[in-house]
Amino acid sequence: MGAGDPKDPRRRRLLTGGLGLGAALVAGRAGAGTGEGTPDPKITELQPWTAGPGVGVEANPYGQPVRFEAGVVRRNVPWFSADTISAVNFTPLQALDGTLTPNGLCFERNHAGVAEIPPEDYRLMIHGLVERPLVFTLGDLMRFPRESHSYFLECAANTGMEWRGPQMNGVQFTHGMIHNVNYTGVRLRHVLQAAGVKPAARWLLAEGADAAAMSRSIPLEKALDDCMIAFRMNGEALRAEQGYPVRLVVPGWEGNVWIKWLRRLKLGDAPWAQREETSKYTDLLADGTAREMSFVMEAKSVITSPAPENPITHGRGPLVISGLAWSGRGRIASVDVTLDGGVNWRAARLDGAAGPKALQRFYLDIDWDGRPLMLQSRAVDQTGYVQPTKEALRKLRGLNSAYHMNGTQTWAVDRDGGVTNVELG
Amino acid sequence: MGAGDPKDPRRRRLLTGGLGLGAALVAGRAGAGTGEGTPDPKITELQPWTAGPGVGVEANPYGQPVRFEAGVVRRNVPWFSADTISAVNFTPLQALDGTLTPNGLCFERNHAGVAEIPPEDYRLMIHGLVERPLVFTLGDLMRFPRESHSYFLECAANTGMEWRGPQMNGVQFTHGMIHNVNYTGVRLRHVLQAAGVKPAARWLLAEGADAAAMSRSIPLEKALDDCMIAFRMNGEALRAEQGYPVRLVVPGWEGNVWIKWLRRLKLGDAPWAQREETSKYTDLLADGTAREMSFVMEAKSVITSPAPENPITHGRGPLVISGLAWSGRGRIASVDVTLDGGVNWRAARLDGAAGPKALQRFYLDIDWDGRPLMLQSRAVDQTGYVQPTKEALRKLRGLNSAYHMNGTQTWAVDRDGGVTNVELG
Repeated sequence: MGAGDPKDPRRRRLLTGGLGLGAALVAGRAGAGTGEGTPDPKITELQPWTAGPGVGVEANPYGQPVRFEAGVVRRNVPWFSADTISAVNFTPLQALDGTLTPNGLCFERNHAGVAEIPPEDYRLMIHGLVERPLVFTLGDLMRFPRESHSYFLECAANTGMEWRGPQMNGVQFTHGMIHNVNYTGVRLRHVLQAAGVKPAARWLLAEGADAAAMSRSIPLEKALDDCMIAFRMNGEALRAEQGYPVRLVVPGWEGNVWIKWLRRLKLGDAPWAQREETSKYTDLLADGTAREMSFVMEAKSVITSPAPENPITHGRGPLVISGLAWSGRGRIASVDVTLDGGVNWRAARLDGAAGPKALQRFYLDIDWDGRPLMLQSRAVDQTGYVQPTKEALRKLRGLNSAYHMNGTQTWAVDRDGGVTNVELG
Repeated sequence: MGAGDPKDPRRRRLLTGGLGLGAALVAGRAGAGTGEGTPDPKITELQPWTAGPGVGVEANPYGQPVRFEAGVVRRNVPWFSADTISAVNFTPLQALDGTLTPNGLCFERNHAGVAEIPPEDYRLMIHGLVERPLVFTLGDLMRFPRESHSYFLECAANTGMEWRGPQMNGVQFTHGMIHNVNYTGVRLRHVLQAAGVKPAARWLLAEGADAAAMSRSIPLEKALDDCMIAFRMNGEALRAEQGYPVRLVVPGWEGNVWIKWLRRLKLGDAPWAQREETSKYTDLLADGTAREMSFVMEAKSVITSPAPENPITHGRGPLVISGLAWSGRGRIASVDVTLDGGVNWRAARLDGAAGPKALQRFYLDIDWDGRPLMLQSRAVDQTGYVQPTKEALRKLRGLNSAYHMNGTQTWAVDRDGGVTNVELG
């Protein structure tokens, strides 16, 4: 039983302490913003939202966030590319809790802008080493048996700016090239089997219908394992920027392989060496050679609060440390958190049991004494793989890579609760 | 192993048949909309979304659905109330798959419109039979240990129009007063314990900050069990119409008890007999007496496709029958589907394992021979409770009630695939 366990008697003492949580006694010390002994006017005075009726139901047939959350949006970095059609929009991890990413806040990366395909014009062609080349409409695909699964999608370049040391002072930009969505669709293997995969086939080429004709080679073994052809995300139709009407889902593998606006699947006996698997999405090592086909996103974690965007504003006492962990090789087995830059580690509480290759929320509930912190989290996955330090990754791979940076992230918390992206010396 | 099991060899035969699914051979019979033997121009001709770049990433910092899905929205029924501030917006179940309801499509019901509360002005007061009356800010509440859980919320009046026979020809209006959301928040019991519940306390009054001051009495046993004080839904902040910044989550119980814009919790030794638990949200029986405090939403299910909004348009062959089941008493154990109005039943395939008091998706994959169908689904929950027929409910409770109609729903499918809301004679 750790300090974060709600059944821990130490925590129970904190809770029954009441005022330790910052709550104000109704007839005694008042809440934030009012002087000692003054009754809280937010309680004693009639508030406008109670005094008169609110907004009617027809206001937004498709509901929108409340105006007070207008700052919770995806953000791009203007210097990333010359044009927004080949840019990236980062997920605001600092404002989210639980594990799901709402569709309106999902990281997006496009290579030739967002294709907008009327569903009746959608086609998927399967050809190459198959018995029967086939063309499917969207309606055809929806007649295979359906399944739903939650998976993370992480860009290979997520945290890539940090290879050379702390660059981005915010978790939205250090780790926001990721989302976690519940997909509904059909198994890729069922659709391939309809065309009849020939015995010589070893690789699959997946190609999108966007102007980049984004295409990647995928080993047939993976294609026949857990890949999906998805047409729903978090219950509703895919968003245009996520590949409407149909995308490929390649659980645990880098996001670039999850082809959006999927229009073509070709079976072959060798990979195709497309631009996005040779010039890009390879890892240039210190000796000048490059790792190719480094598909799997290895175990990683980050604390989302406190974070640069989420300073501690309530002073000492109970503090919820919250973060996310994930692994492209399966489930998260455990997450450790250090408050002192790696000298001591505590087991975080995993919230619920996330499925394999999905984001796992973790918490560590502590009693902050007001001293500076050097916060890190470290994920361990079901294979026993331990998230490495950034320094260990640099020793192995040098400094040339832009991809697959899954090292531990350090946030320095000062006495005032301010948080900065730093690295241990 | 049922016909719906993807491992079933009968299904595998269907799949490897290929053309049985409507797919077109690339060099042979063409796809929908083109003549036999004509290559599909959607494949052979350059499409505009491939010919030129798409939309850039800055278009919607908070992403929106693609324009082709503009019809997928919540809808109200103008005759329901004199004013939209006391109206209802129905979830478009026919357009969703999986189990999650996107925040923009969640059923809403308000009694005095949507309150809009700036988060810094939010307060929650706890008083009555407690050791220490307390006032919490939003920040105070967020310092308790957090958890996330998915639960359905169903209005007691969902399907209520059907007590007197088929009224609404669409699953959005017969069953759309429901949503299924992943909530992040804190246990109600932890917050109550902070105030110190006195031994004499038996009931909790929960009150909202809207102009209706919506309030309900809740037995303390339930309050200390699985209730939550929630501030996130599906990862992001609550929507205004769902109680921003804080709502009560009362798993398995009628939606009216899930107080939105939660401002007050009072502990007492008896229920309060508020308007919404006496004049409303009671069940008037045939003998003139009324059931009070009928909190639990009993096991129920409905087929969402085919449905009146989702006719079969692809003719004979593989047909995916899809639906939702739920129970306020725990998990769904099984769902049966009949094609012939209850003569024969088949076990549906449950997709994944939904948690207790959450929507469970089910499927039955059949080979439709083109004959008319009388489709029904019937849920069984973990307690052994079997969803009853509407007729059985009427015999027990008469025709006066507007609430708690959980009888089996019948959709008549004609030879052309059209679907109508009917009732068996």
